[in-house]
Amino acid sequence: MTTQRTVSFPTQELLDAVGELPANLKPVIWDLESDPDSPLEDIDIAIFPYMADPEFLKNVRRAENVSVVQTQTTGYDGMVDMIGDRAKINTASGVHAAATAEIALGLALASLRGFPTSVRDQDQGQWNPMRWPGLADRTVGLVGVGGIGEEIRKRLDPFEVNLLRFGSTARTDEHGEVYSTEQLADFAGQIEVLILIVPLNDSTHHLVDAELMAKLPDGATIVNVARGPVVDTDALVAEVSSGRLNVASDVFDPEPLPSDHPLWKCPNALITPHNGGNTQAFFPRMVKLLKRQLQAWSQGQDGENLVHRP
Amino acid sequence: MTTQRTVSFPTQELLDAVGELPANLKPVIWDLESDPDSPLEDIDIAIFPYMADPEFLKNVRRAENVSVVQTQTTGYDGMVDMIGDRAKINTASGVHAAATAEIALGLALASLRGFPTSVRDQDQGQWNPMRWPGLADRTVGLVGVGGIGEEIRKRLDPFEVNLLRFGSTARTDEHGEVYSTEQLADFAGQIEVLILIVPLNDSTHHLVDAELMAKLPDGATIVNVARGPVVDTDALVAEVSSGRLNVASDVFDPEPLPSDHPLWKCPNALITPHNGGNTQAFFPRMVKLLKRQLQAWSQGQDGENLVHRP
Repeated sequence: MTTQRTVSFPTQELLDAVGELPANLKPVIWDLESDPDSPLEDIDIAIFPYMADPEFLKNVRRAENVSVVQTQTTGYDGMVDMIGDRAKINTASGVHAAATAEIALGLALASLRGFPTSVRDQDQGQWNPMRWPGLADRTVGLVGVGGIGEEIRKRLDPFEVNLLRFGSTARTDEHGEVYSTEQLADFAGQIEVLILIVPLNDSTHHLVDAELMAKLPDGATIVNVARGPVVDTDALVAEVSSGRLNVASDVFDPEPLPSDHPLWKCPNALITPHNGGNTQAFFPRMVKLLKRQLQAWSQGQDGENLVHRP
Repeated sequence: MTTQRTVSFPTQELLDAVGELPANLKPVIWDLESDPDSPLEDIDIAIFPYMADPEFLKNVRRAENVSVVQTQTTGYDGMVDMIGDRAKINTASGVHAAATAEIALGLALASLRGFPTSVRDQDQGQWNPMRWPGLADRTVGLVGVGGIGEEIRKRLDPFEVNLLRFGSTARTDEHGEVYSTEQLADFAGQIEVLILIVPLNDSTHHLVDAELMAKLPDGATIVNVARGPVVDTDALVAEVSSGRLNVASDVFDPEPLPSDHPLWKCPNALITPHNGGNTQAFFPRMVKLLKRQLQAWSQGQDGENLVHRP
């Protein structure tokens, strides 16, 4: 119960914000890039940086006694392969839900109301009133009904849309019917706005491929706030550069999107650089989660959002 | 009850969409720019074009027997002076509520999530992840609690904001406290996002003036979907060009915003060209309202949204 353990924090700022640690937990600062002040083998629990180069994250293996990893992200794709053989993995599920859900709504609204065109017109000093589709009265396909998916559903609810939800399995919940993602192709012909918020795994990799995109109606908009590889990027580029489909996306395959990628050149693509969970709401919510996790770890418990055991 | 009356429609498209008229109503097409096929003095009821040059709208006075004017807008600023001495005025209140409310949310989200910067980065092929403020956890001042104001309140509700509402008089309604717009200055220091959706009249002209803006915290964002003159534009330019405040606005004073206006040059201004109510949701909703109005007029009734009698 009162085993002494060492917890690494990626920044002094985060450690300071968390405040005093339970007596049996000792903090060290380790950003996974440079070496910490104390020996790597002391570290039992490693809190990852928020947005880090995967190359640096691999350094976690150098801390040979790490048995718990805490991410600051909701997704943990690649992490089981990286360290799952010897560490439990806890995510920051919930922390990013509000910010990611709001960027999904923002991307949909901005694209459907032509804001990218307005910004480009603004830079030319041009006043060009136009009728844009808008969100009201649209049929929206929401793929993903987990934590963030539910936050997106809540925010969509007052916007007078016709909402179709898709999850890993068909079921009915308190908000109505959830179709299986396998049924997505059957409904695609109606879906004018396709919002993606599924975890990336074998069954969601290239879930939105050329075949599915071909079924979407002309002028449909794909909003991706999940992970880039949920969409087949080559197929997306073909449909968007032809002007048949629009995309408003915060995630890409690969990231960063290379500077010569054809998607940058598409005026009907709205590209945000994986800013989804990264707002001023993030830090205070992350600190609150860590305070709860530290209490749990100090008592030998697993804490929240345990997604993997070795 | 069955008096024969002539109704002018601004376009054949609108007349076609409305379908067969009640037997005692005769349609003519009149866009208020060129002369109609039948004599102007026959027209009893004039349906205005949606977005028209005010210069053309004045032509309604040439139809000397017009006793009812139906706008396709929610606002009717200037129309009482123009024709109110001899015609009733019915607005399209309600028709634009969904589209205008959604553009208010869209403008707030786009500005608070840095989409204009993303669009400009995109045009340079630049991937620049950044922490933007975001909408969650912000204190939002919503000024205007009428039809569209209520639609904005509904849409804001799931976004985890701290909402302060302001109306013409202080009161309590089913959603909590409504402060008087006279109290706006007392709360301004807390308001990080100020959303304006009041009608333009003597008491709202320059409601947001230099003095009020000076009270808003650094980095606050003004979202105007009301009418341009609700904000003192010179004072706005001073606060936005200095970078202290941000603006995301669909309405301006004057409109169109002149091509040499300093606001175009502010990267922290998001300018949409009065597209608020103009989406694909508009036309079917306008047609539905007109069908109800035509039934009412055919029976000698006033119809919905009567805002002025001579």
